[in-house]
Amino acid sequence: MRTIITGGTVVNATGRAHADVVVDGEVITAVTAPGLITEADRTIDATGKYVIPGGIDAHTHMEMPFGGTFSHDTFATGTEAAAWGGTTTIIDFAVQARGTSLLATLDKWHAKADGDCAVDYGFHMIISEVDDGSLKEMRPCIDAGVNSFKMFMAYPGVFYSTDGDILRAMRRATETGSMIMMHAENGIAIDQLVAQALAEGRTAPVEHGLTRPPELEGEATSRAIALAGVTGAPLYIVHLSARHALEAVAAARNTGQNVFAETCPQYLYLSIEDMAKPGFEGAKYVASPPLRTRDHQADLWRGLRTNDLSVVSTDHCPFCFEDQKVLGRDDFSKIPNGMPGVEHRMDLLHQGVVAGEITLERWVEISSTTPARMFGLAGRKGTISPGADADVVVYDPAATQTISALTHHMNVDYSAYEGMEITGRVDVVLSRGSVVIADGAFHGKPGHGRFLKRDLSQYLL
Amino acid sequence: MRTIITGGTVVNATGRAHADVVVDGEVITAVTAPGLITEADRTIDATGKYVIPGGIDAHTHMEMPFGGTFSHDTFATGTEAAAWGGTTTIIDFAVQARGTSLLATLDKWHAKADGDCAVDYGFHMIISEVDDGSLKEMRPCIDAGVNSFKMFMAYPGVFYSTDGDILRAMRRATETGSMIMMHAENGIAIDQLVAQALAEGRTAPVEHGLTRPPELEGEATSRAIALAGVTGAPLYIVHLSARHALEAVAAARNTGQNVFAETCPQYLYLSIEDMAKPGFEGAKYVASPPLRTRDHQADLWRGLRTNDLSVVSTDHCPFCFEDQKVLGRDDFSKIPNGMPGVEHRMDLLHQGVVAGEITLERWVEISSTTPARMFGLAGRKGTISPGADADVVVYDPAATQTISALTHHMNVDYSAYEGMEITGRVDVVLSRGSVVIADGAFHGKPGHGRFLKRDLSQYLL
Amino acid sequence: MRTIITGGTVVNATGRAHADVVVDGEVITAVTAPGLITEADRTIDATGKYVIPGGIDAHTHMEMPFGGTFSHDTFATGTEAAAWGGTTTIIDFAVQARGTSLLATLDKWHAKADGDCAVDYGFHMIISEVDDGSLKEMRPCIDAGVNSFKMFMAYPGVFYSTDGDILRAMRRATETGSMIMMHAENGIAIDQLVAQALAEGRTAPVEHGLTRPPELEGEATSRAIALAGVTGAPLYIVHLSARHALEAVAAARNTGQNVFAETCPQYLYLSIEDMAKPGFEGAKYVASPPLRTRDHQADLWRGLRTNDLSVVSTDHCPFCFEDQKVLGRDDFSKIPNGMPGVEHRMDLLHQGVVAGEITLERWVEISSTTPARMFGLAGRKGTISPGADADVVVYDPAATQTISALTHHMNVDYSAYEGMEITGRVDVVLSRGSVVIADGAFHGKPGHGRFLKRDLSQYLL
Amino acid sequence: MRTIITGGTVVNATGRAHADVVVDGEVITAVTAPGLITEADRTIDATGKYVIPGGIDAHTHMEMPFGGTFSHDTFATGTEAAAWGGTTTIIDFAVQARGTSLLATLDKWHAKADGDCAVDYGFHMIISEVDDGSLKEMRPCIDAGVNSFKMFMAYPGVFYSTDGDILRAMRRATETGSMIMMHAENGIAIDQLVAQALAEGRTAPVEHGLTRPPELEGEATSRAIALAGVTGAPLYIVHLSARHALEAVAAARNTGQNVFAETCPQYLYLSIEDMAKPGFEGAKYVASPPLRTRDHQADLWRGLRTNDLSVVSTDHCPFCFEDQKVLGRDDFSKIPNGMPGVEHRMDLLHQGVVAGEITLERWVEISSTTPARMFGLAGRKGTISPGADADVVVYDPAATQTISALTHHMNVDYSAYEGMEITGRVDVVLSRGSVVIADGAFHGKPGHGRFLKRDLSQYLL
Repeated sequence: MRTIITGGTVVNATGRAHADVVVDGEVITAVTAPGLITEADRTIDATGKYVIPGGIDAHTHMEMPFGGTFSHDTFATGTEAAAWGGTTTIIDFAVQARGTSLLATLDKWHAKADGDCAVDYGFHMIISEVDDGSLKEMRPCIDAGVNSFKMFMAYPGVFYSTDGDILRAMRRATETGSMIMMHAENGIAIDQLVAQALAEGRTAPVEHGLTRPPELEGEATSRAIALAGVTGAPLYIVHLSARHALEAVAAARNTGQNVFAETCPQYLYLSIEDMAKPGFEGAKYVASPPLRTRDHQADLWRGLRTNDLSVVSTDHCPFCFEDQKVLGRDDFSKIPNGMPGVEHRMDLLHQGVVAGEITLERWVEISSTTPARMFGLAGRKGTISPGADADVVVYDPAATQTISALTHHMNVDYSAYEGMEITGRVDVVLSRGSVVIADGAFHGKPGHGRFLKRDLSQYLL
Repeated sequence: MRTIITGGTVVNATGRAHADVVVDGEVITAVTAPGLITEADRTIDATGKYVIPGGIDAHTHMEMPFGGTFSHDTFATGTEAAAWGGTTTIIDFAVQARGTSLLATLDKWHAKADGDCAVDYGFHMIISEVDDGSLKEMRPCIDAGVNSFKMFMAYPGVFYSTDGDILRAMRRATETGSMIMMHAENGIAIDQLVAQALAEGRTAPVEHGLTRPPELEGEATSRAIALAGVTGAPLYIVHLSARHALEAVAAARNTGQNVFAETCPQYLYLSIEDMAKPGFEGAKYVASPPLRTRDHQADLWRGLRTNDLSVVSTDHCPFCFEDQKVLGRDDFSKIPNGMPGVEHRMDLLHQGVVAGEITLERWVEISSTTPARMFGLAGRKGTISPGADADVVVYDPAATQTISALTHHMNVDYSAYEGMEITGRVDVVLSRGSVVIADGAFHGKPGHGRFLKRDLSQYLL
Repeated sequence: MRTIITGGTVVNATGRAHADVVVDGEVITAVTAPGLITEADRTIDATGKYVIPGGIDAHTHMEMPFGGTFSHDTFATGTEAAAWGGTTTIIDFAVQARGTSLLATLDKWHAKADGDCAVDYGFHMIISEVDDGSLKEMRPCIDAGVNSFKMFMAYPGVFYSTDGDILRAMRRATETGSMIMMHAENGIAIDQLVAQALAEGRTAPVEHGLTRPPELEGEATSRAIALAGVTGAPLYIVHLSARHALEAVAAARNTGQNVFAETCPQYLYLSIEDMAKPGFEGAKYVASPPLRTRDHQADLWRGLRTNDLSVVSTDHCPFCFEDQKVLGRDDFSKIPNGMPGVEHRMDLLHQGVVAGEITLERWVEISSTTPARMFGLAGRKGTISPGADADVVVYDPAATQTISALTHHMNVDYSAYEGMEITGRVDVVLSRGSVVIADGAFHGKPGHGRFLKRDLSQYLL
Repeated sequence: MRTIITGGTVVNATGRAHADVVVDGEVITAVTAPGLITEADRTIDATGKYVIPGGIDAHTHMEMPFGGTFSHDTFATGTEAAAWGGTTTIIDFAVQARGTSLLATLDKWHAKADGDCAVDYGFHMIISEVDDGSLKEMRPCIDAGVNSFKMFMAYPGVFYSTDGDILRAMRRATETGSMIMMHAENGIAIDQLVAQALAEGRTAPVEHGLTRPPELEGEATSRAIALAGVTGAPLYIVHLSARHALEAVAAARNTGQNVFAETCPQYLYLSIEDMAKPGFEGAKYVASPPLRTRDHQADLWRGLRTNDLSVVSTDHCPFCFEDQKVLGRDDFSKIPNGMPGVEHRMDLLHQGVVAGEITLERWVEISSTTPARMFGLAGRKGTISPGADADVVVYDPAATQTISALTHHMNVDYSAYEGMEITGRVDVVLSRGSVVIADGAFHGKPGHGRFLKRDLSQYLL
């Protein structure tokens, strides 16, 4: 079965070319001058459009348990929504419950995802309990293709790890060549601010933001970097939201330390003002770290240009407004943390191209190429080149659309970007050579998506 | 005429693939899975070897007038030597003599190079005289494909521009979208140190280094950045040699300012100790900025990893030891400034890969991809992809060689790296589809190389 | 009763003058031109000597419980030793035991010191347990003249406070205008390193230093500064030992944040090499933070010149080698933490004057004037001026002495500076007008020293 | 002749005391407890008032030639105005005219001032021409009590020195232990901006500010620091106005380099908005560096607290609006540069005490004590202590006044602070024991003021 995507502009991270893409079976077999190879079972006309590697969302939470409920997208609904938005790989998080082993956790998450995914997927592992057992299990996890371990400096009593735990895990990461991912907020200090706010009767959603000041994200980021420095471990800061944290990352990167960071579209486009909307509306925007004041946005775009921010992921973790967010109606600290986003990442970042914040090539790099290289998928994903999986998106830069919960495909009853007008739209999506999105319809099926055993990061010399 | 390079590992800046490269005429027409296309006029076996985009040396000085003499390589000998070393594009400098117009200068340099070059070439323009005339000529220069203008904060009375001149030229660069390249050393202060040294009878080659301290490179770099900040001009620091300058560049880049820098192999591998060799031997290493103490080297390698240094060029400017360097036997300030290097840049940087300082992909990026994108050759050079010029190097990573003036092809009587053992060697070189190096022989011819009209830099949003 | 100290050079923090000092009863009543007032009950000839305000050691631990034992100097022996060394005020630490109230703690410490001290003394309060009770007690403590509250980021399970505790206490400090003092080492991470060392059989004294790397002091210092920034609390970093911490303090001070730091003589003169002495000898130098590598010393002296380090205290906390330090013979983590020093601070810092590291005026400032202004004793202590307590030291800059446990007056069986030759020596010491040291003999008596109710810091605008 | 100032609060840089000050002849002979000495020829009641060391204005320009005219205050009128404002010492600048020797210049300035001054005065030397002659003359200047040498990076063709000149002079300063003062603005670049503005028809006073952007003050400050670093010379940045420059100074001071800076009241209270007043009114505020945007003011106050700014001087250089400022009515570049200020420095800085920006002690320190120590007057000036000259100001902190050209004593027809209401007022002023201001009248006389041979700076270890 051969497919040729013809007439488009192939955009990779370091350049663009007018070229055809030849797909045989599940892989790209050639990138050629237009018309060089013509014999094909299926030809997709990409004239006037971009042909880009499928997006990789390195940070999603499908069916994630949180505060007694679950994020509302299943692996089936979430990956279909991803496909709609031009994302053909997600890396989700297996979440170690206290008292459970890492390998049992991994089995559980395999069971959740297996046979359900519309596109390929991998796992990071969340370590909630650092002990001899879990440290020992890091090796078999790595052998099983899960080599990035997330820890939390936030959420005491839930996911929180002490600095001692972090130090132990980092040391083990250094020994095994794996990577530590960090939710860097000083949860211990934040809990104090939360308790104080509640004691003073401040219960509205915006208090979620006010009790998690950017200084405490900056502090935790600096601390994680210091601990990584002591142990030699590579460090990846997830969902960086504040300039304070960005400055810490930039300073460490200047010294050559293996420190990386991602941000998320919500931090680029939304702000704490959204959390202060009248009534309980602000609950839609409750996630951690919280949305910041608007002035942080320019800093984050700059970080994306300077590569102090290397990746944009979504931290997709949707909770329905009507059933789930309401749990915190009288107490912001009970609002499930998270926002939907997996479907619109590519579109939202494309607005950065339109606005001149980033180049076309950088768009591809931060949304696909770098995540692939960062998380051990180099050669397979994130590039339009022979031998790579045929995860290909035909993107129409001239089309327009309006984001709305009425039309989106995520299994959640609101959109954080309701009414936002977008320039650009996904036209066709191939996942490992199969058309999953075309002609405004989903042609994929649950179970097409395969688990990706990931290699070690290419960024770690 | 079709050539297929088969069986190798194609390495681009963001990834590698086992793939064949198909060349039709002068351009790459396909990169394919091994064996996908087999019909060819010529097949080059690259099994076990790297297939990389030809190197781009963005900083050379062929036949350059300096202190009453000329750098010893002609465009013919220099570009042949480049080809031997896997460099298929050079960007040389047209040098405005005072009292001469920029366009006349350009004509003169075209006359020098036309019909002589073995590989493709472009020009930067050195502005020695900033006045209404030269500023007005920047536009036609840009239209003629020369859109990067080099200025000197060093060499008072020769190439030196005042800060006022620089400000004017930078303002014009901002208006025209072109780029200012800067030799950043405080020449006015240095001349004082030189005068003092000579007055004290310190005349040996090493004094060249001692009278140009790294602080004064750092100072000038900071100043150039400040002037660029005031005017909004993009700035490219040439031949950065000192940590002091690197820190200034890194700080500016953190703020998102359009500041870029290159270093050179001599700063990565040689040091001021070489300038202090017995007798007049040190004269071989006299260039500006001078070689630094060894401890700067680790900082420069780090800068190459952090991308605060984006490019490695050679500043190739060879003067023969016997005839030319001796001009300064009794006075280091009369030693012609410059070292040979165009032939060995790719090999020397490959040692960084071998030593684990940089990745294979980064090697390609700093030596070819970034120079292409920086200097308006994106899509044409610096990448193995359809539509690009077929400037391709087959590089054997397992071969070994020893650098020596006895065997090198540059037209100069010494090597700065004499006796250095190298892992890796150029095997085959194609320039626009023609084999110029193969089987240990040069198969090119003068005049094959064409002048490259360059577009504006891709890095400037 | 009038005493006149005549013929000397009066040195205050901002200048020196040839002047006489007139003391009536317990206070200085005049500083005059030589011979202006001559009528006196007692005349002390200070010709050729310095007349300086008595030293203030703002950080001592007499009779302090630690690890099942007590620091070996009582308030009686410790303050007599202080007087011998020209220190006429100490500020010791009342140590809240868990389950005890602050006010009960204060009573207990008053009971220890009352009637025993040879010179005046004040208290800081160590908060070991942050709860509603202790926070509420901060106000009565302040009213009782104890307005600086020390917390520990080190020693988990003993004095350790969480970041949440610190945040609460800092908020209370902001409300009350009082100051938080911080032992800034990441004790949680350090405990991991200690556990690992012991698990690997590394038990020697030097491991105490190796398991407390300077990065973890720098980290904790940054964290304390961030928490202080969030709450607005003034912050005083005690016993800063490492350049990493100094850089954090300097950066905060540049922004105008109310952050201050002290270092100790042992960090200026001793190093981790001392901890690596053969056998168990290194135990003599076990304190926290640990002694650092020698290269930190120049940075600390620089910090004293730039005022990023404002005070030098001793952290005097002596444990006998034979009876107490031996508790850790087989396990460095059981060695009581602390070193003797109260007697030699003025002499050791005077070596900095001799060596040209600091000026004579700066010597007085960091050892007396600034501690007085920092800790609410301005006007009373730290200056030779009318109205101030007549705590006066006549110091002979030309005398020499050799430090030795054989001759020192501290109640401990070793000296950390054994055999060190000192230029300069205390000649006469007055405490509130009474001669306590003269003619090489102690003339004071326990109980002369009074408790100092301290005002709020003069440094906090 | 004995005078006793009784009942006041004596304020020195490091503390305050209720004390009497005894003056015999020209010097302070005692500071005593109230009433200790009562026998006196004259008693001044300072009850409820501050008794402070007379102010030292380390930067004035009396009768200075500039652009074909002279600053309008003579040494007689200017020093009387100084006395009215509580300033009892000025350090003015002898200005080397090109072609004149330093010593001849000094003679000329002595001739101007001799017999005319109401209070004591010293000289700095402006070097306009760096050659063997002037460098050699630095030593006799130092011997003559003039040991601080000012250079200009601004004003090309007038006072401007090249970086080479600066390097030479700095080297000489290092050899002689003297100090280089720097007007740090990049005059070469500024001249370009001025020429461009004029060419575009922008001629109004505010353009003076717009063509001298703060970045170019920051740049020059960094450059001066770098040159000082290369030579080892101490450096004093005059009239620092911009945060960009402050950051450079702070960074250098953190490293321990001997770099100091002063700012002026106009930068603390006025802004570029004043220069943009309607009509030609803005000319009143034309000085260099220019007034900045308001946001710089908070940074400067912070710098005064952190001691990155050590001194406040006035740069007093008055030109009459009607006769002199008008020279630039059609061309801002022809407006004489300078503003009046010597009379109101103490009052204006006292507003900083009232507003809580600085402490009372810091007020004394930056306006008197530090200038004395910085410029070799320690022990003689800047302190209320025995042996010091009896330059004493009784300052009434409760009085109020309104600044106006109608009432001020400077010989200039406008005030830059017209209508500003001030809390605090000078009550009595003694210069070397003589009452020069009392009861709202001037009691001094021209010629009372003596030339001060200054020692080397106390700040340079």
